[in-house]
Amino acid sequence: MKKSETLRIAIVGATGLVGRTFLKVLENSFIPIAKLDLFATSRSAGTSIVFKNKELIVQDIKNINFANYDVALFSAGKDASKEFAPLAVKNGTLVIDNGSYWRMHPQVPLVVPEVNFEDAFKHKGIIANPNCSTIQLVVALKPIENKFKIRKVEVSTYQAISGAGQKGINKLLKEIETGVPVDTLSKHPIAYNINFHTIQSKFGFSEEEIKIINETRKILHRKNLKISATCVRIPVLVGHSEAVSVITKNEFSLEEVEEVWRQSPGIIIVDDPQNEEYPTPKMVEGTDSVHIGRIRRNPAEKNGLMFWVVADNVRKGAATNAIQILEHLWKVAPERIFSFQKMFK
Amino acid sequence: MKKSETLRIAIVGATGLVGRTFLKVLENSFIPIAKLDLFATSRSAGTSIVFKNKELIVQDIKNINFANYDVALFSAGKDASKEFAPLAVKNGTLVIDNGSYWRMHPQVPLVVPEVNFEDAFKHKGIIANPNCSTIQLVVALKPIENKFKIRKVEVSTYQAISGAGQKGINKLLKEIETGVPVDTLSKHPIAYNINFHTIQSKFGFSEEEIKIINETRKILHRKNLKISATCVRIPVLVGHSEAVSVITKNEFSLEEVEEVWRQSPGIIIVDDPQNEEYPTPKMVEGTDSVHIGRIRRNPAEKNGLMFWVVADNVRKGAATNAIQILEHLWKVAPERIFSFQKMFK
Repeated sequence: MKKSETLRIAIVGATGLVGRTFLKVLENSFIPIAKLDLFATSRSAGTSIVFKNKELIVQDIKNINFANYDVALFSAGKDASKEFAPLAVKNGTLVIDNGSYWRMHPQVPLVVPEVNFEDAFKHKGIIANPNCSTIQLVVALKPIENKFKIRKVEVSTYQAISGAGQKGINKLLKEIETGVPVDTLSKHPIAYNINFHTIQSKFGFSEEEIKIINETRKILHRKNLKISATCVRIPVLVGHSEAVSVITKNEFSLEEVEEVWRQSPGIIIVDDPQNEEYPTPKMVEGTDSVHIGRIRRNPAEKNGLMFWVVADNVRKGAATNAIQILEHLWKVAPERIFSFQKMFK
Repeated sequence: MKKSETLRIAIVGATGLVGRTFLKVLENSFIPIAKLDLFATSRSAGTSIVFKNKELIVQDIKNINFANYDVALFSAGKDASKEFAPLAVKNGTLVIDNGSYWRMHPQVPLVVPEVNFEDAFKHKGIIANPNCSTIQLVVALKPIENKFKIRKVEVSTYQAISGAGQKGINKLLKEIETGVPVDTLSKHPIAYNINFHTIQSKFGFSEEEIKIINETRKILHRKNLKISATCVRIPVLVGHSEAVSVITKNEFSLEEVEEVWRQSPGIIIVDDPQNEEYPTPKMVEGTDSVHIGRIRRNPAEKNGLMFWVVADNVRKGAATNAIQILEHLWKVAPERIFSFQKMFK
């Protein structure tokens, strides 16, 4: 029997970079927590993690009884989401999944609270958190779409290696320290270098590029949106940056663009380039907002807008966004946490 | 009295990163050198530099007598080029200038040998070497322009900090070592971060972005070419990368595109992304070619082509290109080294 004054929360994948950040973000959340249990795959079970000055022992996900939880926050990788999310749903537990497995499923809303929170209401047990590079992009695009209508988007990303989790960070730091390439994630070094994400498609796009394209279309409800992407990992620890070029249907002035962004939640404008004021990865580390700068007209396009958007990929790009989904639901429609039509019976 | 069997060469700015690379490239050049003297501003005069196992002492540029040289290779910064290039020309000495000061001057050809060598013939004493980010871009664009005609170009750069010379390299390495930001070039750290180039224009474009736009137009003889750019410095020591998106007038197949590139000089294709074969900065360090990969269709455009282009910015992006201009002239029109109509009398 589910209660509704407080929440019983399970974190699945608690030992990973995003899992640990779930905890940091939850520590400062207004959500009243009745119970918080941590889970991970057997490899990491037994780890102890401190939450609000209390030591919690991470349990093996195989032993979870979802009936004990109202909500499960997942960030344990594709396979764990695939296997355990349906089990959670069958038990009536709402899953907020940071992994990629369920994002494009037609019954799974893909939600960025500032952008399409209303989609979350329609969930059937799983709400997916978008990919990190998508989240900051759609936060910037949505106000432009609302006011000026978007005809086309082109994005080049400058992504932090923490997008690949703790092992990405370890690879970069080890390579910097030793000067020797570490053969994880990519056969190429990332220290003083670039990497691309895994490329499987015969059309030459990386998994990451396909995510940014498909997820942006789904979140903006523009399934035929013209959008292309080049996604690149650079030797930055935290903070994804994106060079974005948009063509709008309606005319705009740069003042109007800035104004709609300023009036939109979750956005901070940092744009005085002549005084070197622009968003950088270092600047946004530890923050929860999407930072926009380098706002200018594209000289090669009618109604062409160019800008630079930076966010903490581990927080707003992952953990913070997931917790924000839960917070919004708790605030405006708590009944949808405790009771919903199940996509798995 | 100028001779024509060998060349008397002055290097102006010999102690800088590009100046030193001039020497490395010249060591392997077929150009018969009768005399090679090194110059720099008074701050660096007195430095000793080894060329072909011989120690050369760098002299103060103020004491140069250009009449003693057939050619002067400049890489001593804007001010030195502005002051001393006219003096060289008046003395009948051909200047090949790596700096930005003369590049857009209507009487100064801006030359990449693979792209527009014929422009060099019209020089009036100064031939300008384009900016590093421009050179690799136009080497990739020219064959596409020839065969398919370019309608539009959009480029996002991932530039090595050596674009700012030795002090850029020092900034990055020092910041990595100490964890403390070094307040040169930018008030922002570059270690695990990004920087933009100086931004003065009220239209919000950086100097570097304006260079890439104007120089590409001049070199391709397309003064109204639609082109936009975002130029970014990343924590890479050597090797500029560029994500390029082109729209062509004529239809193409990816096979045709690859074929025209393979048949063009100065280009190496590295494009088997499913096996992680793509150009990276680390891979091109010390090479003289422009490396192209990630060749794919833009799903958002008719006749849209996307690719990734990487080159050693200190070599092909600066020193090598300048020496190649001299080599080409020596091979096909040596008389234009020794005798030319002077833009300064």
